[in-house]
Amino acid sequence: MVPILDLATPCLLLDRHRLDANLRRMADRAAALGVNLRPHLKTAKSADVAARVTHGNRLGITVSTLREADYFADHGARDIVYAVGIAPARLEQAAALMARGVDLKILLDTVTAAEAVAAHGAPFQVLIEIDCGDHRGGVSPDSPLLLEIAETIRRAAAPSLRGVLTHAGHSYRVATAEALATIAEEERVAAVRAASRLREAGFTTDIISVGSTPTALFAANATGLTELRAGVYVFFDLDQQSRGVCRREEIALTVLATVIGHNVDAGKLLLDAGGLALSKDTGATAFRPEVGYGEVCDVSGCQPLPGLFVTAVSQEHGHVPVPDAAAFDALPVGSKVRLLPNHACMTAAAYEEYFVVEDDAVVDRWPRVNGW
Amino acid sequence: MVPILDLATPCLLLDRHRLDANLRRMADRAAALGVNLRPHLKTAKSADVAARVTHGNRLGITVSTLREADYFADHGARDIVYAVGIAPARLEQAAALMARGVDLKILLDTVTAAEAVAAHGAPFQVLIEIDCGDHRGGVSPDSPLLLEIAETIRRAAAPSLRGVLTHAGHSYRVATAEALATIAEEERVAAVRAASRLREAGFTTDIISVGSTPTALFAANATGLTELRAGVYVFFDLDQQSRGVCRREEIALTVLATVIGHNVDAGKLLLDAGGLALSKDTGATAFRPEVGYGEVCDVSGCQPLPGLFVTAVSQEHGHVPVPDAAAFDALPVGSKVRLLPNHACMTAAAYEEYFVVEDDAVVDRWPRVNGW
Repeated sequence: MVPILDLATPCLLLDRHRLDANLRRMADRAAALGVNLRPHLKTAKSADVAARVTHGNRLGITVSTLREADYFADHGARDIVYAVGIAPARLEQAAALMARGVDLKILLDTVTAAEAVAAHGAPFQVLIEIDCGDHRGGVSPDSPLLLEIAETIRRAAAPSLRGVLTHAGHSYRVATAEALATIAEEERVAAVRAASRLREAGFTTDIISVGSTPTALFAANATGLTELRAGVYVFFDLDQQSRGVCRREEIALTVLATVIGHNVDAGKLLLDAGGLALSKDTGATAFRPEVGYGEVCDVSGCQPLPGLFVTAVSQEHGHVPVPDAAAFDALPVGSKVRLLPNHACMTAAAYEEYFVVEDDAVVDRWPRVNGW
Repeated sequence: MVPILDLATPCLLLDRHRLDANLRRMADRAAALGVNLRPHLKTAKSADVAARVTHGNRLGITVSTLREADYFADHGARDIVYAVGIAPARLEQAAALMARGVDLKILLDTVTAAEAVAAHGAPFQVLIEIDCGDHRGGVSPDSPLLLEIAETIRRAAAPSLRGVLTHAGHSYRVATAEALATIAEEERVAAVRAASRLREAGFTTDIISVGSTPTALFAANATGLTELRAGVYVFFDLDQQSRGVCRREEIALTVLATVIGHNVDAGKLLLDAGGLALSKDTGATAFRPEVGYGEVCDVSGCQPLPGLFVTAVSQEHGHVPVPDAAAFDALPVGSKVRLLPNHACMTAAAYEEYFVVEDDAVVDRWPRVNGW
């Protein structure tokens, strides 16, 4: 077993105990709500994480790219929701996945996309995206467009409508349990309302899918829903911690970095983890302005070093202002630290693999699939 | 030759004519200043770009990671400056590069790192990093530390001091030719001052290296310098354009994206290029707040579509508010656009390759090296 301290930096560490606890937390949560969990693997993008998150079974999964779908299909996944609106030019790739035996569900929210699906001729299974208040993609649950899209699918010979899907992205704009519960309820009501309109019009809606990590953890109930999607909960991050969704001690993903400079005049440490190694996401700063691009922790216990944050980045440098000169002595050039990432999904995407760690040792290496 | 429109999205397009013009511009500039150009390949990370940027010769190059150094050495580079402060644990990798015949120069700015270099025993060639006002890494040109570090190297048997290196990162904080010229002069004076102090103390300083794309293009003179480093000029981006460093028509790198949704109620288009495909860098918004994560252009002429910008991103979605409903007709679901990136170095890092384009056709594919 390789000690963490022997790894070349920057690299991505994944704490196995924290990961397992996070997986249990969400599995228990879905069980308590009485709804299926369909993990969103856009965060982990790893077949090894997938095997743990689906507890070795071939549970349904969610993906954000067709490359992920191909990769997870290669690793045995059969029931896949591709939860980003389909580009018509990607239909051929989606059809190829179905031809491999994948039970793929695609997403759309326009008549144009529905017409492209209808015209293609493959037996696509379609979910209609609903806007539950995030105002990203999706049709309003009360929009005439909902039935128009469904009708376009029904008129075609090959494809079939399976149901509706919504995502409460606006849950990231709030940071209290009450506000999160309110948004979770909006998400649930929007999906159930859209599905009931479709059913009243004679359409099948056997999938009624909602989800985001914050709403999944704070929803009061899941009445009328068939499944819950969530992704970032596998690792958590400062973005979630800053909103009260997790505790810092639950963050399973860290970046291992080395102190490469002391700018004593400027009162800061330089790390070899910059904008590429951490990403430029600063979502957590909406609620914890001090955290910048990452919170600095020690290596062995992953305990925060008080007052130390990566407040600025350039491509390969992370800047850590120090409260006093003692920090220079505590962290000499060449010493290593662990950084809690601002947003795990974005940070992990810069790396090819996870170094899986238990305490101070690397116990495994798990590859990731990146790109499109 | 594949039409651009046949490419799966999101993907990275590199306009060959614009690239070549950018390379000429900087080569001419260095010639006019009478100083060697040592291109920084942290932006392109491509051996094919390297071959063009060095005009087929084995000119010296600059890199930001030792992985880049290994990759470019595999492709024939022999004179390499690794322009990020060396982590002591990376010295073995640096020594292995030298053992392969690479004339590698490493950078440091602390006595601790100099002691690690001295203790290693390999014949490292060392540059001392100078802080010319950016206050990232480096020692002040007038600091006693400068001579202390040099002395630490001199006392050791194996390594040798080659000179000084500085980077005017603070040139990104201004946006007028006058302010850029002032900072370029600060950069030059700091490097020359540090080198002359070292020479007066009996040290060799045959490399006096400065550079950033803005200062390289706006410096009044290069008196006393031996080389100029610059990287992002090969592609340019909105970050540079917003500061007056380039014209929009010079930006050679774009992301090809597909319209995947029309949220008519919310008044926006959705693209399949989000935070991963564009990066979350918003540096250009300091001077052009409207550009967000990217400026939307048509595919064939790469002309801006007036008023269309990616103002928000989630992992795989780009949000483009539309000024009026006509934009929905002009850009139906399934249509494609090109996005001028906010910061080319960050955007390119999400991709494995460039699709090299001339007019509307893909004429080549060039791989990139990413990660660490």
